[in-house]
Amino acid sequence: MSDIKATQITWHEGAVTRDERRRLLRQQGCTLWQTGLSGSGKSTLAVALEQVLIQRGHAAYVLDGDNIRFGLNAGPKILMEACHYSEGSAKRFGLGFSAEDREENIRRIGEVARLFADAGLVTLTSFISPYRKDRDAARAAHEQNKGGAIPFVEVYLSTPIATCEQRDPKGLYKQARAALAAGKGMGFTGVDDPYEPPLKPELTVDAATTSTQEGVALVLNYLESRGLLG
Amino acid sequence: MSDIKATQITWHEGAVTRDERRRLLRQQGCTLWQTGLSGSGKSTLAVALEQVLIQRGHAAYVLDGDNIRFGLNAGPKILMEACHYSEGSAKRFGLGFSAEDREENIRRIGEVARLFADAGLVTLTSFISPYRKDRDAARAAHEQNKGGAIPFVEVYLSTPIATCEQRDPKGLYKQARAALAAGKGMGFTGVDDPYEPPLKPELTVDAATTSTQEGVALVLNYLESRGLLG
Repeated sequence: MSDIKATQITWHEGAVTRDERRRLLRQQGCTLWQTGLSGSGKSTLAVALEQVLIQRGHAAYVLDGDNIRFGLNAGPKILMEACHYSEGSAKRFGLGFSAEDREENIRRIGEVARLFADAGLVTLTSFISPYRKDRDAARAAHEQNKGGAIPFVEVYLSTPIATCEQRDPKGLYKQARAALAAGKGMGFTGVDDPYEPPLKPELTVDAATTSTQEGVALVLNYLESRGLLG
Repeated sequence: MSDIKATQITWHEGAVTRDERRRLLRQQGCTLWQTGLSGSGKSTLAVALEQVLIQRGHAAYVLDGDNIRFGLNAGPKILMEACHYSEGSAKRFGLGFSAEDREENIRRIGEVARLFADAGLVTLTSFISPYRKDRDAARAAHEQNKGGAIPFVEVYLSTPIATCEQRDPKGLYKQARAALAAGKGMGFTGVDDPYEPPLKPELTVDAATTSTQEGVALVLNYLESRGLLG
């Protein structure tokens, strides 16, 4: 174990520059924003990409429902039970599934992705993010980043709803159709809430006709072609 | 530019393991939580540490007011003006400086720090974080992290308030004293809102008697001794 002495410590005025980060990680931080219906293959693609990037020596991280919805963007119940929030605070800060709650959910995710990308990571987000306006706001936050614009790559999982519904990995379509039939809509994207496809996604992947391997290769080649992994 | 083919892509079931990240970045992700009064030297220490870590080949990132309070934890005004939130949404989701807003501010920062550390970075936070309960909650979120406990290192900047107030880099103490004298308290930590010192901080740095170089060396040696940079 080295014993580091104060006299060995030097640094420059101001913040770490983007070039310093780029040299360290041998890549440019960016955000790959997976969007698409439930069951369209967002997480499968994101998780495979994360692994393959790390195999190839690139720092990468996936933000998804698992690590966001139980923490940063938890609902009122978790805030009350795990964080001991008062009922008032839990209701105010907890996120549900109304239009404005979804907007705030995506805004926060966009901000966290921007921070990760600013730190130099290839950041992968995997959320339905059904509204164009909310995705465009996340893109704008990246473009207007104070330390310089951060590449934002929208990856549209265009898998047809028939395929998504047939897969129904979490049984959610079944639940949503039943709720709708019983006259109690649950605002489920593609069933009784709209999905607004990207108008100009950087990449489009239809998981009904594209294997995960092919999808990963497509994205990696795109990142290489933009010089983000060099 | 390499042309990557789908047949070259392989990965394993499940998520990236902690060992894979550790091997890639040659370090263990952790959070260094700087806490102390305004003007106590939190940011100076955090920014110097970030630079020195990066010089030494370690991925590191600072979360501070600059990148958090204008984005993830913005107040109602920014949410209305920059994000075009409705007044209702902006008031609900925007963070001010009441006790519950400070609690939510620190909760979100704790969650983001946990994500960064989970991604393998040495994460440095620089916030007054005056309440013990809120810092302890951030620590608990790290200890109870789903993928395994994440080291949380509380770095207490114990600089005496007289020194902090003499420095007053942003003129905030002056403002707070004037407000108090005029009978309009602004709830400023150390003046008319309490600072609760950590009971068992991993590290304590008094910037009145410790140079930044000495502080950086102290923290680096601590990280080495815990094997977090190996």
